[in-house]
Amino acid sequence: MEFRAGQRATWTKTITEADVYAFAGITGDFNPLHVDAEFARHSRFGERIAHGILTAGLISAVLGMRLPGPGGIFLNLALKFLKPVKFGDTITAEAEVVSYRSDKRILTLKTACRNQRGEMVVEGESVLLVDPLPKE
Amino acid sequence: MEFRAGQRATWTKTITEADVYAFAGITGDFNPLHVDAEFARHSRFGERIAHGILTAGLISAVLGMRLPGPGGIFLNLALKFLKPVKFGDTITAEAEVVSYRSDKRILTLKTACRNQRGEMVVEGESVLLVDPLPKE
Amino acid sequence: MEFRAGQRATWTKTITEADVYAFAGITGDFNPLHVDAEFARHSRFGERIAHGILTAGLISAVLGMRLPGPGGIFLNLALKFLKPVKFGDTITAEAEVVSYRSDKRILTLKTACRNQRGEMVVEGESVLLVDPLPKE
Amino acid sequence: MEFRAGQRATWTKTITEADVYAFAGITGDFNPLHVDAEFARHSRFGERIAHGILTAGLISAVLGMRLPGPGGIFLNLALKFLKPVKFGDTITAEAEVVSYRSDKRILTLKTACRNQRGEMVVEGESVLLVDPLPKE
Repeated sequence: MEFRAGQRATWTKTITEADVYAFAGITGDFNPLHVDAEFARHSRFGERIAHGILTAGLISAVLGMRLPGPGGIFLNLALKFLKPVKFGDTITAEAEVVSYRSDKRILTLKTACRNQRGEMVVEGESVLLVDPLPKE
Repeated sequence: MEFRAGQRATWTKTITEADVYAFAGITGDFNPLHVDAEFARHSRFGERIAHGILTAGLISAVLGMRLPGPGGIFLNLALKFLKPVKFGDTITAEAEVVSYRSDKRILTLKTACRNQRGEMVVEGESVLLVDPLPKE
Repeated sequence: MEFRAGQRATWTKTITEADVYAFAGITGDFNPLHVDAEFARHSRFGERIAHGILTAGLISAVLGMRLPGPGGIFLNLALKFLKPVKFGDTITAEAEVVSYRSDKRILTLKTACRNQRGEMVVEGESVLLVDPLPKE
Repeated sequence: MEFRAGQRATWTKTITEADVYAFAGITGDFNPLHVDAEFARHSRFGERIAHGILTAGLISAVLGMRLPGPGGIFLNLALKFLKPVKFGDTITAEAEVVSYRSDKRILTLKTACRNQRGEMVVEGESVLLVDPLPKE
């Protein structure tokens, strides 16, 4: 495989209450900001919001499915959370190649998530090992 | 709320096939390393492994449930993925306070995940805003 | 077991966003018509719709639960998709016996799904093998 | 968009107990062949098997995600169920273009599902409407 700086891919999904509840259920993160409508109503967000790591999951999807695609595995991940994701927001995860070391098959990408208004909600960088097939 | 350097909390769960499949299902990350047993058998891991971001979800849980607990929200997250998590591995997410700026209510923690053999599988740092109640 | 032409059964469920998202999650069908509210808004349907095969799942239910009931297995399935199923639509799957070959235990049924306004959204035919117990 | 006869795409997933149980949960098809291990043990299959329509869901995925991809919607579906899918089987859904009527944007494909031994478990034909954007 070869990658060039600037190569891009995206992955879009509308984040729903069902997603947030399923994510709480598999991780155990029942932070009331995510699953307690009364608590959340009195928070600065005024309503329940999605887990930041759930939004990060869309970054996992764009990397695992599209760029670099099947077989890529995470080495490093760095994220800044800029804005809340509300139930019903449509989030697009974007990945853009920064650099590729073909000798070590290490791919560095800029990653970001934007909502349906184009606002960046998460930004960061991911480093992946590409094509982890057995060494001969 | 007050926090002191060195304060610790943990969160433990055995990661199952059902967890991995649910995570694939809510994010769309069907990377064959996670959901295709035949592909995974020929990978360097020899079997399907959990998504790295799913393991990171346990960090979300220890932070959201225990330290700092309800109301904390992510500002920054940095993770290194050191070893694969296999189906059936029992993962303990650990959080330890590094520092707390009480004027801005910003909490910095070291975070790590270990498996049932005590091997560190993920390590990193998280920065949270604590207690996001409405401003007076 | 005996079956006569004209024998009928139904199965009803309101199809929710959670159902559609779970179906996407177990199959991997993240077609944006189903999970991307922005994309769907600009489609001819104007909003997200359920997967056709999810609606077909209600046919599986009426056959597997009621007519012929436990033990029936699909041999053939043919479906026409006539109208979209929207989130919140209440769908009734109907099955009606066309014929039964008791020597081979092969049951042929007309199957259809209607929404809460009585509009047919799916129609077709199913052929099942009944009572797949071990041969003596 | 243009399509040519013979164009192909695939989609692979290992079908697990969690998938079958989730599918039962969203459709209501609790046929004991799928969710009752005791009943299934005495059936001709000797163990619980996946719902046929769940396997058909992988056909929905290959069509909705890869060929023709986002925006395709089912008009017709015909399937023959040839062999049972057991928990843990790795199923590859295949789609191959038979013909395309570009004036009506109607795409006809041969579809099949094979297990990890290459055995065909489902075969059939699908007819889709491609790119259902609003008419001008």
